[in-house]
Amino acid sequence: MKPTHIEHLGIAVPSLESTIPFFEFLSGSKCYNIEEVADQKVKTAFFKVGEVKIELLEATSPESTIAKFIEKNNGRAGIHHVAFNVESVEEALKEAEAAGLQLIDKAPRKGAENLMIAFLHPKSTCGILTELCEQPK
Amino acid sequence: MKPTHIEHLGIAVPSLESTIPFFEFLSGSKCYNIEEVADQKVKTAFFKVGEVKIELLEATSPESTIAKFIEKNNGRAGIHHVAFNVESVEEALKEAEAAGLQLIDKAPRKGAENLMIAFLHPKSTCGILTELCEQPK
Repeated sequence: MKPTHIEHLGIAVPSLESTIPFFEFLSGSKCYNIEEVADQKVKTAFFKVGEVKIELLEATSPESTIAKFIEKNNGRAGIHHVAFNVESVEEALKEAEAAGLQLIDKAPRKGAENLMIAFLHPKSTCGILTELCEQPK
Repeated sequence: MKPTHIEHLGIAVPSLESTIPFFEFLSGSKCYNIEEVADQKVKTAFFKVGEVKIELLEATSPESTIAKFIEKNNGRAGIHHVAFNVESVEEALKEAEAAGLQLIDKAPRKGAENLMIAFLHPKSTCGILTELCEQPK
């Protein structure tokens, strides 16, 4: 795989409202986008630090994987996933599969900020939930 | 705070040897440095993805915080900390303290790769163990 850079860090939080001020302080930048991703049952907030985005994720439903993550983490925030930017998610998925990694998404799908995305299963990525992202053309 | 970029992601692993091949595949780059940090009781391995480093951390003693992290994480790897690069760790610590954050290190100390570093307490950083780094002059 040949990622160009880390696209974002996904951080699960119990509430965007209560955590945005801290991440604005830490990143030294204003939250520049808040977006709901309906099919993932999350509301996201974005910050920029150099070439990397910080994506806060708040569950919009108790069935959201983010709600389950927060529950397992005793109600606290935590780093949920790391997203790598690649030229082609489709090609990267083929490479990952050929290398024996387990795919959560067999094909790219639309994520926040109009990116095409796919997740690799943490069972095959040393426990780190890994996302692949491709910028919109 | 005005970090220039995310300096590295610190990932605790049960063993460098067994996880380096995966991170070489994921980052598309060879591990470029292996270093022991005696006072933190860890052995580290570094990879580069864009401007961000991935730092794997293996405990060299059962008393290492990394050993405790892995134990709590049921023997599995996990994201241990996020490190932000700043112009001056000393100034950033003053700002953090003035903002009411809890400091683990009251003053900069030497970390891996000759960086000056300091940690902020996750209790005051939304549960994310946060490191501040300053490049050697």
